[in-house]
Amino acid sequence: MKIAVIMGSDSDFDVVSKGLKILKEFGVEAEVRVISAHRTPFQALDFAKNAEENGYELIIGAAGKAAHLPGVLAGVTPLPVIGLPIKSSTMDGMDSLLSIVQMPKGVPVATVAINGAENAFLLAVQILSVKYAELRTKFKEYKENMAKQVIEKDEKIKLKIKN
Amino acid sequence: MKIAVIMGSDSDFDVVSKGLKILKEFGVEAEVRVISAHRTPFQALDFAKNAEENGYELIIGAAGKAAHLPGVLAGVTPLPVIGLPIKSSTMDGMDSLLSIVQMPKGVPVATVAINGAENAFLLAVQILSVKYAELRTKFKEYKENMAKQVIEKDEKIKLKIKN
Amino acid sequence: MKIAVIMGSDSDFDVVSKGLKILKEFGVEAEVRVISAHRTPFQALDFAKNAEENGYELIIGAAGKAAHLPGVLAGVTPLPVIGLPIKSSTMDGMDSLLSIVQMPKGVPVATVAINGAENAFLLAVQILSVKYAELRTKFKEYKENMAKQVIEKDEKIKLKIKN
Amino acid sequence: MKIAVIMGSDSDFDVVSKGLKILKEFGVEAEVRVISAHRTPFQALDFAKNAEENGYELIIGAAGKAAHLPGVLAGVTPLPVIGLPIKSSTMDGMDSLLSIVQMPKGVPVATVAINGAENAFLLAVQILSVKYAELRTKFKEYKENMAKQVIEKDEKIKLKIKN
Amino acid sequence: MKIAVIMGSDSDFDVVSKGLKILKEFGVEAEVRVISAHRTPFQALDFAKNAEENGYELIIGAAGKAAHLPGVLAGVTPLPVIGLPIKSSTMDGMDSLLSIVQMPKGVPVATVAINGAENAFLLAVQILSVKYAELRTKFKEYKENMAKQVIEKDEKIKLKIKN
Amino acid sequence: MKIAVIMGSDSDFDVVSKGLKILKEFGVEAEVRVISAHRTPFQALDFAKNAEENGYELIIGAAGKAAHLPGVLAGVTPLPVIGLPIKSSTMDGMDSLLSIVQMPKGVPVATVAINGAENAFLLAVQILSVKYAELRTKFKEYKENMAKQVIEKDEKIKLKIKN
Amino acid sequence: MKIAVIMGSDSDFDVVSKGLKILKEFGVEAEVRVISAHRTPFQALDFAKNAEENGYELIIGAAGKAAHLPGVLAGVTPLPVIGLPIKSSTMDGMDSLLSIVQMPKGVPVATVAINGAENAFLLAVQILSVKYAELRTKFKEYKENMAKQVIEKDEKIKLKIKN
Amino acid sequence: MKIAVIMGSDSDFDVVSKGLKILKEFGVEAEVRVISAHRTPFQALDFAKNAEENGYELIIGAAGKAAHLPGVLAGVTPLPVIGLPIKSSTMDGMDSLLSIVQMPKGVPVATVAINGAENAFLLAVQILSVKYAELRTKFKEYKENMAKQVIEKDEKIKLKIKN
Repeated sequence: MKIAVIMGSDSDFDVVSKGLKILKEFGVEAEVRVISAHRTPFQALDFAKNAEENGYELIIGAAGKAAHLPGVLAGVTPLPVIGLPIKSSTMDGMDSLLSIVQMPKGVPVATVAINGAENAFLLAVQILSVKYAELRTKFKEYKENMAKQVIEKDEKIKLKIKN
Repeated sequence: MKIAVIMGSDSDFDVVSKGLKILKEFGVEAEVRVISAHRTPFQALDFAKNAEENGYELIIGAAGKAAHLPGVLAGVTPLPVIGLPIKSSTMDGMDSLLSIVQMPKGVPVATVAINGAENAFLLAVQILSVKYAELRTKFKEYKENMAKQVIEKDEKIKLKIKN
Repeated sequence: MKIAVIMGSDSDFDVVSKGLKILKEFGVEAEVRVISAHRTPFQALDFAKNAEENGYELIIGAAGKAAHLPGVLAGVTPLPVIGLPIKSSTMDGMDSLLSIVQMPKGVPVATVAINGAENAFLLAVQILSVKYAELRTKFKEYKENMAKQVIEKDEKIKLKIKN
Repeated sequence: MKIAVIMGSDSDFDVVSKGLKILKEFGVEAEVRVISAHRTPFQALDFAKNAEENGYELIIGAAGKAAHLPGVLAGVTPLPVIGLPIKSSTMDGMDSLLSIVQMPKGVPVATVAINGAENAFLLAVQILSVKYAELRTKFKEYKENMAKQVIEKDEKIKLKIKN
Repeated sequence: MKIAVIMGSDSDFDVVSKGLKILKEFGVEAEVRVISAHRTPFQALDFAKNAEENGYELIIGAAGKAAHLPGVLAGVTPLPVIGLPIKSSTMDGMDSLLSIVQMPKGVPVATVAINGAENAFLLAVQILSVKYAELRTKFKEYKENMAKQVIEKDEKIKLKIKN
Repeated sequence: MKIAVIMGSDSDFDVVSKGLKILKEFGVEAEVRVISAHRTPFQALDFAKNAEENGYELIIGAAGKAAHLPGVLAGVTPLPVIGLPIKSSTMDGMDSLLSIVQMPKGVPVATVAINGAENAFLLAVQILSVKYAELRTKFKEYKENMAKQVIEKDEKIKLKIKN
Repeated sequence: MKIAVIMGSDSDFDVVSKGLKILKEFGVEAEVRVISAHRTPFQALDFAKNAEENGYELIIGAAGKAAHLPGVLAGVTPLPVIGLPIKSSTMDGMDSLLSIVQMPKGVPVATVAINGAENAFLLAVQILSVKYAELRTKFKEYKENMAKQVIEKDEKIKLKIKN
Repeated sequence: MKIAVIMGSDSDFDVVSKGLKILKEFGVEAEVRVISAHRTPFQALDFAKNAEENGYELIIGAAGKAAHLPGVLAGVTPLPVIGLPIKSSTMDGMDSLLSIVQMPKGVPVATVAINGAENAFLLAVQILSVKYAELRTKFKEYKENMAKQVIEKDEKIKLKIKN
């Protein structure tokens, strides 16, 4: 199983890389690319057009400002596309969020929180786990671990307040 | 293949029903429920806890205002959860959108446009088609039909302007 | 001289048509098309790629919601692209505006007001008038007429208040 | 008299701790916990379900981003729930505020200002003082002291400007 | 047990009256008044100053636009003050919400949703029930009834979809 | 001639002090005070009630967050009240601006830009100059100087670009 | 005493006319004009330049969308300029408000609420009353009447609730 | 060929200068000026009035806050005017953007992204290239270079991820 991660700019990598770590824990292979909907539009369409044939099972598109990349990819490929809005220097990411989530009827993009790279990749895992049972199992463990960490923090806070 | 559609209120049905039609075209079975994260919280958690075992492959959560339902379901189930923000009488749906999309690290909700019921269901189809090849085929046809319709509208406009 | 007017949806025509009237007064020919960045992406790129060769001197792109069309066209064509944000049923046009105006470095879109169809077309005239002196002359007359109308309204208000 | 303070994440403690100091001045006991509506949802519901029986008289829920915690607790417990929106790295706290305050009919959350930890705890004191006369007395003193401090600052400014 | 309901304008009564019905179900007495923080400021302060002595146990303040009333009352009285933001003809209630909820340190206002009259009154009941056990009992019944209604709607939707 | 400058908090002084310098240039006397609409409400009303009698000709009210102070003063005094919204740690000053400018019918506050202390004081000068001819003269000089400074900067930029 | 009321468009008259009625009660003469900062810019500057000499004591500028008129007038005249933001078909008046209130250092515009025509004119009266004692007297009566009306509405509500 | 670049304040130069570099690559001459719509309004109108006669082919106006400059210039000149919204210390540039883009019918301003200086100048080049074929050629090379840079970054990321 293999997914594609397309960034509109290499400056998005700081955010994206946080999510990539998660993917490795799940054993999902990721091709990471810089392809711009505006600066290399033909490459963007070509990638999306061939993505299914090239063995990708879903695409994550990360972009900031007028963040068209995820929507443009979703216009071409039948694969599910996850949109990761990147916060840029103005507008606190609101421009990226609206440009990604407000897609017109017929071409959805599965949008996650602004700069929510981990969630973009976890959503990818959840989607793939519809097909791959082993990912489902791992994701349940991930959820359990996450719960354990919260419970540990809860214990620490209780101690901290008592003392 | 079967999905669950949970609405926080029966008043969300006007929007949700637009998407249900699409689902039928694809032959995906949907259980539609009214379960509130706030008014019937235990039912919400029970549903989410048993959803996988009960044969659902993903959940669509539709809610307005402080729209917690999709996030609450996603906290419990390992299934992918799609969030559909419903526009209520104030705030133009911005409250619903932010309450659904801005999920914390570890618990993603795949968010679509405000009142974007069709896209919520199409995204469900796209996610299921990772597993079910026949859905992928139908989705490609759907995309082609959609393109044809745009092309027809394009022809009509050209005529309209000429005359 | 000839321009192209591309709408992402035929529902944008109600707004766009207000501007078309202006264009006729100036004697500029306009090809009006419905081409969607998401539903007919290859057509969009093809149109943009050939627009210069096909004799268009600029492109107006009108779109609502996650309004990617003007930016996608601008990514391909060297022609100036004017973006007209269309107000849709939610968000009061803010999503369209930000999706169009917040373009990344290197690919500008000349954005006008939300639903500002007349201004999109007047801007087209102003841009063409850099080359075509007769348009400059007509535009100056347009400005003078506009001023006269304001002055007439001013006279009417003065009378109205007096009586 | 005893209240519960539930944070969605231990990172909320920096803000919450400012309010805890106030509570000590009033002699109100507080149990501080980290319980996540999304990462430990069953613990959240269990806590809320048993809160009344366990002797808590009200609950403060602090959370950021898609801040569901206070609303989720309020869905279960009959106790008054105070919601404290925490500002996170994007959106300036607007997402937290709307996720907490815009609760649907039937399940109110008493919301205070973004990052307004002191006010969350003072509101708790005011609510408890409906029952406990000694808290009312102390709260009046608190208000008087607050007024005195403003008056002192007023005197200082007057001097500063004169000299 | 008795509460005060202060509106900044009689035009707020359309919204407020929806919540008053709820209060009657709970047997809580309410004094409803029109007192403006800006047009009758001395009456506002007098009311707040004497509210405790006059036997009120809490105050609900409803106001729109630059909605100062709840905050002004809270500045004077030690009683808990609930703020109900009213949506006016512009700004979709955002001005009212921010004017009420963003109170400075020391003077909290327990804010509910924009136009959320029912929740303002239910929150009043919840606060009073800290002291009055019979209100707690009634509120639990209210919550149960609310859950029952959701469950009934759930049954109806299930039937509707089947047929 | 004498004006009053009331701040809701001494932390507003950093912004306010920038404007005070301007006032000195114009020879207008200013009484600067810290009086809180919420923490010392009776002092606020007393000040406003007696302001005219005490010889003040107008009042500047500076406040942040739920910035009620200017509106509360304007409710009592017949003097013109200028509102200066202060940017606080969240919301970028939007809460202060809306709380000050969106005053209900009958009680205007003359609002200036967020953190626009200089403009608050210049507006005070302009208002007083309706009465005091010498201030009008000085204000015209101020405007001329301001224009000269822009022209000097224009010259510098022209040189800078040339070299 | 005489003021000028300049509207950017005659479509603003519906809002402005509400405030004009108030002015008549106070016996202040108003010249009402339609002058556009964009369509008749030279007229706008001429008016502003000669306003003082022509006997106006202040100017009210009403405008919508990118509402430059009040700021442009304020750039030229030494008279106080009141800005009245008009709500247009999109953006709920937020564009008008920010375009008017966020003036740069040196050129204040005294801004009132969106569509707050009455307050624009009442502020004019308050400013003129710095000079004209009879206006101060009338304004105090206006305030008293306004208070009386609130008190009457208060009595009516009390009766209404009782019966 | 020659364009004019007018800034409302010399503090805008930090942003504007980034775009100037681009212009030099294209061999377009630029006159850079500081002229304020508010502080030197007559200079602004004079400049705009004579711009065409003085040989400028278009004008870029850069301004922040209540950014009237581009609109004011566009009111006078028949030349195309590009508006560059500058982000100031509050409001994240939203005030500048709306003040520039929301121009009324008849007077368009071609608006680019907040702080998008490069795009303002590239748009200028695109507009001029309607007339000057050599600029069109250079602009196509610019686009190709930009694409090449993205492709290089794509190669680097691929390597980085592999190792």
